[in-house]
Amino acid sequence: MSYPALEQHFRRLGHLQHAAAILGWDEAVIMPAAAGAKRAEAMATLQVFIHEQLTDPRLGDWLAKATQETGLTPFQAANVREIQRLVRRAQAVSPELVERSANAQLRSEQAWRRLRADNDFAGFAPLLAEVITLKRELAAQLASALGLTPYDALMDEYEPGLKAAALDRVFADVRAFLPSLIEQVIERQRGEQAIVPRGPFPIAAQRALGEQMMQAIGFDPNHGRLDVSHHPFCGGVPSDVRITTRYDESDFTSALMGVLHETGHAKYEQGLPQDWMMQPVGSARGMAMHEGQSLCSEMQVSRSRAFLEFLVPHVAHAFPAAAAAQPEAFTVDNLYRFFTRVERSKIRVDADEVTYPCHILVRYGIERALIDGSLTVAQIPEAWDAGMRELLAISTGDDHRDGCMQDVHWPAGAFGYFPTYTLGAMTAAQLFQAALRAHPDLPAQIARGEFAPLNAFLRGAIWSQASLYDGEALLRRATGEALNARHFEAHLRTRYLSS
Amino acid sequence: MSYPALEQHFRRLGHLQHAAAILGWDEAVIMPAAAGAKRAEAMATLQVFIHEQLTDPRLGDWLAKATQETGLTPFQAANVREIQRLVRRAQAVSPELVERSANAQLRSEQAWRRLRADNDFAGFAPLLAEVITLKRELAAQLASALGLTPYDALMDEYEPGLKAAALDRVFADVRAFLPSLIEQVIERQRGEQAIVPRGPFPIAAQRALGEQMMQAIGFDPNHGRLDVSHHPFCGGVPSDVRITTRYDESDFTSALMGVLHETGHAKYEQGLPQDWMMQPVGSARGMAMHEGQSLCSEMQVSRSRAFLEFLVPHVAHAFPAAAAAQPEAFTVDNLYRFFTRVERSKIRVDADEVTYPCHILVRYGIERALIDGSLTVAQIPEAWDAGMRELLAISTGDDHRDGCMQDVHWPAGAFGYFPTYTLGAMTAAQLFQAALRAHPDLPAQIARGEFAPLNAFLRGAIWSQASLYDGEALLRRATGEALNARHFEAHLRTRYLSS
Repeated sequence: MSYPALEQHFRRLGHLQHAAAILGWDEAVIMPAAAGAKRAEAMATLQVFIHEQLTDPRLGDWLAKATQETGLTPFQAANVREIQRLVRRAQAVSPELVERSANAQLRSEQAWRRLRADNDFAGFAPLLAEVITLKRELAAQLASALGLTPYDALMDEYEPGLKAAALDRVFADVRAFLPSLIEQVIERQRGEQAIVPRGPFPIAAQRALGEQMMQAIGFDPNHGRLDVSHHPFCGGVPSDVRITTRYDESDFTSALMGVLHETGHAKYEQGLPQDWMMQPVGSARGMAMHEGQSLCSEMQVSRSRAFLEFLVPHVAHAFPAAAAAQPEAFTVDNLYRFFTRVERSKIRVDADEVTYPCHILVRYGIERALIDGSLTVAQIPEAWDAGMRELLAISTGDDHRDGCMQDVHWPAGAFGYFPTYTLGAMTAAQLFQAALRAHPDLPAQIARGEFAPLNAFLRGAIWSQASLYDGEALLRRATGEALNARHFEAHLRTRYLSS
Repeated sequence: MSYPALEQHFRRLGHLQHAAAILGWDEAVIMPAAAGAKRAEAMATLQVFIHEQLTDPRLGDWLAKATQETGLTPFQAANVREIQRLVRRAQAVSPELVERSANAQLRSEQAWRRLRADNDFAGFAPLLAEVITLKRELAAQLASALGLTPYDALMDEYEPGLKAAALDRVFADVRAFLPSLIEQVIERQRGEQAIVPRGPFPIAAQRALGEQMMQAIGFDPNHGRLDVSHHPFCGGVPSDVRITTRYDESDFTSALMGVLHETGHAKYEQGLPQDWMMQPVGSARGMAMHEGQSLCSEMQVSRSRAFLEFLVPHVAHAFPAAAAAQPEAFTVDNLYRFFTRVERSKIRVDADEVTYPCHILVRYGIERALIDGSLTVAQIPEAWDAGMRELLAISTGDDHRDGCMQDVHWPAGAFGYFPTYTLGAMTAAQLFQAALRAHPDLPAQIARGEFAPLNAFLRGAIWSQASLYDGEALLRRATGEALNARHFEAHLRTRYLSS
């Protein structure tokens, strides 16, 4: 029996990852900036220890035996499969390339913060070029070991098994309907008036409202927290999920929707099976499914008219002065118009759900070309401008700050990640439709603040299954069909063009 | 040259310790309690990795060669000596005992928080008994490898080289003068009246005052933070020192003096030499010297009349309503009487500096007996009550909460630690006298809020020296004499009986 040795080994590795997750949260939320250099060294060393665990020479023998063992439970067998996947990926790359990449990415990410503020693409280009050179080398090593194309080998880290060929088909569907749909929605909303709620909205009250809402929709405060960071994220570990937001006294809506988005991620983590918490099979199933949870929470649920019927009294109660001064802004009708406003804009993270996929399509095309070598770093601004003009009728010109330098992903070396945002939007729509078929009364329940039925559906279909199945099988079991853009398109047409 | 390999190896180990320190801080300050079990496992595994690094088979060879190398700088040579010490201690204990101990201690510490509140010694006893059983096993393994008695082997972790035989001599001095001195001080203070400042003292204002004062006396906010925890402590790493306190709206004095105490620890950590931060020689030199820094800050400096001349205007400014309502309480004279009030009490952490050593003597006697097996856990309450009656004329009876369950040390497995508090009090008195000899103007400087001269003395004599010397040599170089109780006694007689 070598299976128990595998579990024991990966429990240790899970503990290192636990430490890395808490250190990462601490760095973003707590740590004074001047302590960053030493923290970066400590975190890099943790990654080295994790990589050493994944390339332990005993693993080959253990895995060879474990795959022959009979009588493993489905979760155990899937755990062997997931371990094999992680080990293969780790063994495929040389440790010195991992270290050189980590260093280059750290340097480039740190410089990016300053250079973006200065709109300095010329200063940024050589740093990004180095990251890409190393990333292409890494992709080549992974590709030859895994029998994948280099870009697929990169995507596989975030969404196991995802291939550009499949992605291209789905994205072609999106490209076919989205630009004209955006045009129609903007035309339709031209006559509408969404009144902007006027503050001040005291931060303590925003925080209290956020905590009340996150718990109302199912966040377990015994196993997580809400804090503040510059960039909102969901971190920590399943037993202790740390979500963050940022507050603006003059606007409560951005922090609140941010909290409801991150709570979707958090509920997935908190809903993973207790017994498998420290094993690879116990992890969430890929970033597309993860984003599916957060977008189900934010887009499918929290921006729906039904949810606003539940939310609005709480908002009025949280900000009595603002609500009294401007009652017309704090109605369900007005806030629904406000939360479903569509606008073409330069910045991905501020984009509404209708225009958001265009931002992803631009990035996807560019990063694939960067990885296959058909585009150089110097050519990015032109490709960006062309993509934005084609899909969103916006020219970014020389505004690199709010153009191709706006995201941390590339300087940090995260190539192959962007597509999961749009796959997540489709997953969310498809899952919510499946939940609606199971519970036709869902909108009425949501309007009454009853989230247990929806959560039970997601827990049964997705959260409790962790990585037992591959992403495609998991979604098919939950919804009866493969991932596709139809439900997403139908959702957009219903919400933005028909009601 | 095998010395560079040693440094490289211990840098990795330092990074693991960095992770463990931040996880420990997080556990006490941030983490929701229900996440404790998984955190305990992760922290135990980190200790196993640290232990594995310390017992790496290559170390024997590297150390053998490094001790022969010529041309090492004094810090490098001392680093080899410190590495050897750590490796010897680590090799002496079995890894599985380290892991079992870490788990038992964290479980027991987590349960203690609840059980102490419930005064539940019966519930606590089996958890503590398990910790002690494992600790005795560990002490026995250490003792046989290091040629020390089991208790000395435990003390050696906190104060390298400290032996019970030497401690007994110093403590006999204390026991000889202290009870009658306490009697005299209480008699003398019987006629005095110290007015208790009346709140409320808003917590935000207390926090702001604490941060202002910690920075005034030399804390660098770019490399550390002040937060809240159940039990105040100084944690984190030298590049990011995390101190904590706890607030009570009706009393600002306890939190403030707590902050000034922990700031003494923090300044030591922040003052350690940058270049040696990740190496064993770069660590603080033992817990007695550490407590010497905190007690120098709190007792020698912050409770002096000179410091109160600096402090009182800031206090009045921080709490204008309270100061206006009760001006007679916010004078230097009254606050000096208040901050030097001596009272026999049950709680160590609330004890004044005169009665404090009695609390240590009680614990020292009990923990030595627990480790040598002459006392069982069930017998602790009786031994505690007897000790408190003998030294402080107080009976704790069935009040375990404020009796033998008041401290986190035993449930957390810290046996051999308590003596360092009283050695620290002596160190503080001895160091402050040496600083006074070098700067006779020190009290006047302190009254003006000038802390640079005192900090320069401590930085030169202690902080910058890290673990270059052993504890005895370090103190002798700084003060011209070995550690002894005379300066402590003189300090108490001057402050409490003569002025």
